[in-house]
Parts: sequence; structure tokens; C-alpha cells
Amino acid sequence: MQELSKKKRRGSAPDAPNARRDAMRKLAVGALAAGAALRAHARTTPDTASIAPLEVEPWTLAPGASLLSPPYGVPSSFEADVFRRSARAPAMPGSGSSMTPLADLSGTLTPNGLVYERHHAGVPAIDPERHRLAIHGLVREPRIFSMDDLLRLPSESRVYFLECSGNTGTEWNGPSGLPVQLTHGLLSCCEWTGVRLSTLLDEVGVDPSAQWVLAEGADGAALTRTLPLERIVERALVAYAQNGERLRAENGYPVRLIVPGFEGNTNIKWLRRLKLVRGPEMTREETSKYTGLLPDGRARQFVFEMDAKSVITRPSAGHRLTARGYYAISGYAWSGRGRIRSVDVSTDGGKTWRPARLTSAVHDRALTRFEADWQWDGAPANLQSRAIDETGYVQPTHDALVAARGVNSQYHYNGIQNWHVEATGEVRNA
Amino acid sequence: MQELSKKKRRGSAPDAPNARRDAMRKLAVGALAAGAALRAHARTTPDTASIAPLEVEPWTLAPGASLLSPPYGVPSSFEADVFRRSARAPAMPGSGSSMTPLADLSGTLTPNGLVYERHHAGVPAIDPERHRLAIHGLVREPRIFSMDDLLRLPSESRVYFLECSGNTGTEWNGPSGLPVQLTHGLLSCCEWTGVRLSTLLDEVGVDPSAQWVLAEGADGAALTRTLPLERIVERALVAYAQNGERLRAENGYPVRLIVPGFEGNTNIKWLRRLKLVRGPEMTREETSKYTGLLPDGRARQFVFEMDAKSVITRPSAGHRLTARGYYAISGYAWSGRGRIRSVDVSTDGGKTWRPARLTSAVHDRALTRFEADWQWDGAPANLQSRAIDETGYVQPTHDALVAARGVNSQYHYNGIQNWHVEATGEVRNA
Repeated sequence: MQELSKKKRRGSAPDAPNARRDAMRKLAVGALAAGAALRAHARTTPDTASIAPLEVEPWTLAPGASLLSPPYGVPSSFEADVFRRSARAPAMPGSGSSMTPLADLSGTLTPNGLVYERHHAGVPAIDPERHRLAIHGLVREPRIFSMDDLLRLPSESRVYFLECSGNTGTEWNGPSGLPVQLTHGLLSCCEWTGVRLSTLLDEVGVDPSAQWVLAEGADGAALTRTLPLERIVERALVAYAQNGERLRAENGYPVRLIVPGFEGNTNIKWLRRLKLVRGPEMTREETSKYTGLLPDGRARQFVFEMDAKSVITRPSAGHRLTARGYYAISGYAWSGRGRIRSVDVSTDGGKTWRPARLTSAVHDRALTRFEADWQWDGAPANLQSRAIDETGYVQPTHDALVAARGVNSQYHYNGIQNWHVEATGEVRNA
Repeated sequence: MQELSKKKRRGSAPDAPNARRDAMRKLAVGALAAGAALRAHARTTPDTASIAPLEVEPWTLAPGASLLSPPYGVPSSFEADVFRRSARAPAMPGSGSSMTPLADLSGTLTPNGLVYERHHAGVPAIDPERHRLAIHGLVREPRIFSMDDLLRLPSESRVYFLECSGNTGTEWNGPSGLPVQLTHGLLSCCEWTGVRLSTLLDEVGVDPSAQWVLAEGADGAALTRTLPLERIVERALVAYAQNGERLRAENGYPVRLIVPGFEGNTNIKWLRRLKLVRGPEMTREETSKYTGLLPDGRARQFVFEMDAKSVITRPSAGHRLTARGYYAISGYAWSGRGRIRSVDVSTDGGKTWRPARLTSAVHDRALTRFEADWQWDGAPANLQSRAIDETGYVQPTHDALVAARGVNSQYHYNGIQNWHVEATGEVRNA
């Protein structure tokens, strides 16, 4: 192994056809030099010519664990530190939030066990046989649906992100020092399956005077929001499944509203009631809460769409670069107004930008994965990303956002995030 | 509730603008009539005009469970019967398979805890810090990669199905009587993230004489296959994540090969070694196993792509239709050769066919969800689906498949599946 490293160091340039290959050679040198040399071992694989034989590890020498242990699988024990965490203790029992470990994830989807939580009165244990959804108000024929009724109706399956409008509120006053799980982790992305809201509205016959819809949850908070029908009816789902299986209890089992691109709070969990109304009902969650206080004392109300945003997850605060050389900078981009058009990355704190690759499917109102090549030369650096969505909107800097909104808005923070890389390789939120 | 049913029965036709609305009205009547009437309850919601007030259930009257219990979430206790099952006891410890509960799933993705398993020597517990991947053979510069090396390289995230080539082998001799979990459950679909095989091959520099690649697992079976480079290099991934998180142990942790569209067995788990070679190495798993015995005594060998296939999952064997009226027939379609172009559904055992809706994203070599409207009139019926892929290939009937391959092929069964609906509403694999 040491020999390989030396050889590669000497011969890194001449036969490399392009810069990335060069870059990756350097990665290889760094990583191999940093790692422990493989120990000598009597049992080796005979046909690995030209490189040190691979060690035959104990797990190759005996049968492994049996099937179906357990029948509903769990993560590897080597991934035991990947779980949801809270930034602070809940204000009261049942309240609070827990956050998705974004730095440990790849791709675009969030496994159901890691989807962020935000509850106002805890997680109800709802019996799906007893649960009912009423649709009433300004309709020709009000209706009550059982879960069996909903499951027999036409359905649709789409990938959408969910983001709490309070996500990244930690950064209004500048860098919080927190890692990405605790700054951006009120963010998840799932394939949701359910009945289109429009299908259900066809069932009850909406009166033309109905312009908004009130949605109410069956939890102890009976959380309630009103939503403008015209802006949501094309996409909203009354969803009973996420990532292929039925909703998790903490995500709204047995049924919830999905309002693609709108702030998480409007995606009412444990959905119990939809009432067609003329205008907003001015519920608690759209008056005293979920409004943004501006510097002049006015408040922004009914700000539904989550603006385009992105964040680098690897490397990010808490990581340490162990060697100079090549890194694929990787992160998420998303927009509540449509598809991500492009993502730019800077390694000099926003002085210069270059386009990232989009390395996943690009769905409407879904997390999109981006990557950019980076050669770390060992000097301090500042890693940033900015998202541009299909409307042309460009994710703002922290300073531009604060100039427009002040620092008391609390919700809808979408400023460009900076991760500072020290000469030691430590990465900090600074 | 009874009043609503009566009213709807009387007034079902005049104001319905189209057939589906009519159909769904009938659904509603059937389901509500079949369900128990809501019990009277003192605490009601005052503003549900024109329908019986919704009962206020106990879960609305008190705070629910706290956040983060557990920090890595699990399914609702009401979904406790949704788990992987085996069709038969394993032939030896560590061997065997467990199957995905397709009838209980929605959309296109399989949650990681329900992804099917097929092991030849059990599930190894591999320490990712110690695991190595060697790439050698006909290459300019052999290399050994640690997991850290792989994680620093450019990655890609794509949704692909995985299907064991033995899936649905139960049906060669006609209907087995089994439910869909045990006939088609060696089938799953995930978003996979990893390094493109082509990126790694660029690293080592492939000799032009290398036409195939041998892949070896680090499990006790050291499972080994050889694959034709030209047919896989465009899409194959050396994957370390599924559905956003690191691979599950039973699905190859810490790293596996993903060969989109190829039989599951070639997607080597616990990947330890890739050796570039001139031609197939004739390993055990491509000579004595994973070959298809034809009626004339010859065997089909190196049949990699899984042919286009589909199956209705709801309703399917073991379900019971509780009322006449509207049902959305729902299922999966997929092809190892590309995208699904269309799916047809028959309710009369294949005499007549009509097009289904594709109700999810349609990805290359991924599960696609289809749905078709159906009015059950209470008479016996035979539900079937057939997939057509972008190459124009049409899923064959059981009889056409058997005429071409006989009944001893064991692998690659993709005949049209029939679910027989009795007049009682019972659905059987007959």
C-alpha cells in the first residue's frame, strides 16, 4: 500500500487525460496515505496481481446472520449515530421538533425513520378503522370518508420535499455555530401517495363562493390552517403513504394533507376535516404564529411557498478534512415554486461561483442533489451554494435577506449558508 | 350517516358530470352502508353542517406521545402485519430469501426495512473502516479503495428496481394459490447512490482486452458473477446508499454493485473485488445456477435483463371485496430494458384490455405504478395486467411463456398474473 502511494505520487501527471482524473488520483494518494496500511494476513486472495493481496476478513470465513432478523429491517449497527435530534428541549410535553441528519444522507429521499418531526401536542395513536375525514362547508353534498373509502379511490404518487417554515431560523443573526442537522434538518423528502384533493372536491361539489379551504388535524392541538384553493388544488394530495408504506404516526398516520412547496405547517397531519370557506379563517397558526415580523412593525401573513434554497451537506460543520486533494462537494437544493434549474458553488465565500452538477432526478418541488468538484489545497476556504429555480429566483445572501426582512421574521429563512474550512481541515459554521 | 347513504342512493345519477364521479358515488354508498354507523357522542364539532357531527376521538382530547420515541422511527403499531416473509424455510442456515409485502405498499419505492432479501451464506456484519474494494486484472493500475475513498468521489443517485431472477417461479406450473407477497415479492425499488462503475474504471485504466468484469462479495459465500462490460458500464453503480441512507446490512452494507435491469443475483452485495477479464469466468452462479433449462435439454445462460412484467397488487389474492361498486385497480410494472411505455388491464381474464393510468414518475428500469378504474358488479371476474416497455416488448401470457421455455426454466418467469374474484368478493390466485 505504501508502495502504491509512492508510485502514484511520482506518476500522477503524465498519463491522466483530464483534470478530474488527476484530482481523483490525488484523492487516492491522500486517503491511502492517511489510512492504516493493510495488515499482513496468511489467508489471501491469490489472483489480485500487482497490488497487495486483500485481507480475508472474518465475515468472509463463516456464514452471517439469518434472514428476517428482524422481519422489518433496521439500519446497520455501524450507523447507530444516524438518527433524529432536537436542537433544544421541548417547551412542553408533546411539543417541539426533531431534525433529519442531513450530513449523513445521500441522494434525495429521506428514509421514513429519519423524516423530521414537528408536533404541537405530541403524536396521537389513531386507530385507522375509527378515523374519519369530513369534507363540508360550501359544498353541494358534504361527505364523511373512512380510510377504506379513501383507499378505493384513484391515487397519485409524487416526490415532494417538506420543510418547516422555521427551518434555519438559527441563522438570522449570523452563523450559529451549529451543524447542518440542527440548522437545516427540519427538511425531508418522500414519495407521497394519496388521493388528489381535486378528486375529493369533485365528490362533494364545491360551491363557486368557496375560495379557501380550512384543514384540521385530529391531534390534541387540533391544528388548523386555511389555504387558498386556487393555489393548491392542482397538486395537493390527501396522502396515506410515504416512501411506499403507510404514513408513520409522527408524520400523520393514517392520513395527512400534502401541499407541495408550501410551508410544512400547512401540510396538516392526522387530517380530520376539510371545510370549504370564503376566505382565511384567521386561525391561531396563521395569526399569532407562522407570520413574519418585518422591521417596520408590519407582519407578512399567508406566506406559503418556501423560497428556493440549498445547503452543502458534505463537507459541513463538524466534519474534518483529513487530507488535501479532491473532494466532491455535495448538497441539496429545492424550491417551493417548481423545479431546480441550477446550483452554483463557491469555495471562496461567494467571490466566485461555478455551476454544480445535478446528480439525481430533478422533480417539481422535491429535493435535488448537487455535486461540485473541489481540490482542497490546505488553505482556509469558505464553502457556499446557491440555488436557482425554474422561475429564475436566486437564493439570496444572508445580508440581502436581512436587509429585506430584518432579523425578527423567524420563518422562511433561506439565506446562503457558509461553511468555513480551517487550515487544520476542521469545518465550522462561521 | 344512514340518511346520507339513502339520499345518495336516490340522487346518484342526475348531477354527476361523468362516469367516474358516478362510480365514486357508488363506492361511497357501498362503503358507508357497509361500515358501522358513527356512534352518538356528546362532544361534537359544531360547524359540520348537513352531515352527522364527527365523533371527537380520545386522541384529540389529550396530548400524544413525545418526539423522538424512538429517535430512529418505526412503523405505526396498526401496521404490525406489514413485514418481510419467506415462502419456505431456508435449505441451510443463512441461506434463503424473504419477500416484500407488495400488497401493502403504495407508490413505487420500497422502504429499506421491507426490501427483499436473498442470501447464500447469511448477512455478514462488515466493519466499514476495515472493508476494502480491489479493482484489478486487465487494468493499467490496480487499486484498493477504502469506504472513505469511495465517499470522496463523484456520485450519482438513481431509482432502480431489483428483482431476483427466481421471482414468480412459483407460477411455472400454473396458479400456485399464493398471495402476491409470496409470488412476486422478490422485487423492490430504491433510490441508489454510489460511484459510477465507469468513474472507478477510469481510475484504474481498463485494458482494451477486458470485455467482462468479475464481481465478488465479501460474504461467506464469496458470491461471484461475471458481467459483460459494454452492457453495464453506462449505468452500473458501486452503491453505498439506498433511499437516502447507507445500505442496510442485508442489502450489501457497506457497498454493493447495482446493475440496473439485470437479475438480482448479479448486483453483488458486500462488494469486495472487481476483476477485469477477457470473458465469462463460468462461476458456480452462472453455470449450475442462474441458467434456464429448456425443453430440448439446452440451457439459457447469461440471461441478464429482467423482461417487462407487471402485477396487480390491489386487489390481489387474499383480499376480499366487501361491496360492489368502484375500485381503483392498482399495481406495479417494470422492465429491465428501459422505461415502461404503457400497461393494459383486463377484468375478464384477458379477453378484452384497456389502458391503465401511470400514476407515478416513470423512470428507466424502475417500478412504475399503474391504476385502472373498475366497477365490480358482483359477478366473478379475472383481473390481469400486462406491461409494454419502451422497446415494444409485451409481457406474455403464462401459456405463451411455457410454450417457449417449458416449465423447468426456474428463472425469469414473467407471465401475466391472474387474480380470480369470486362472487363472494374473495380474491384468489387461481
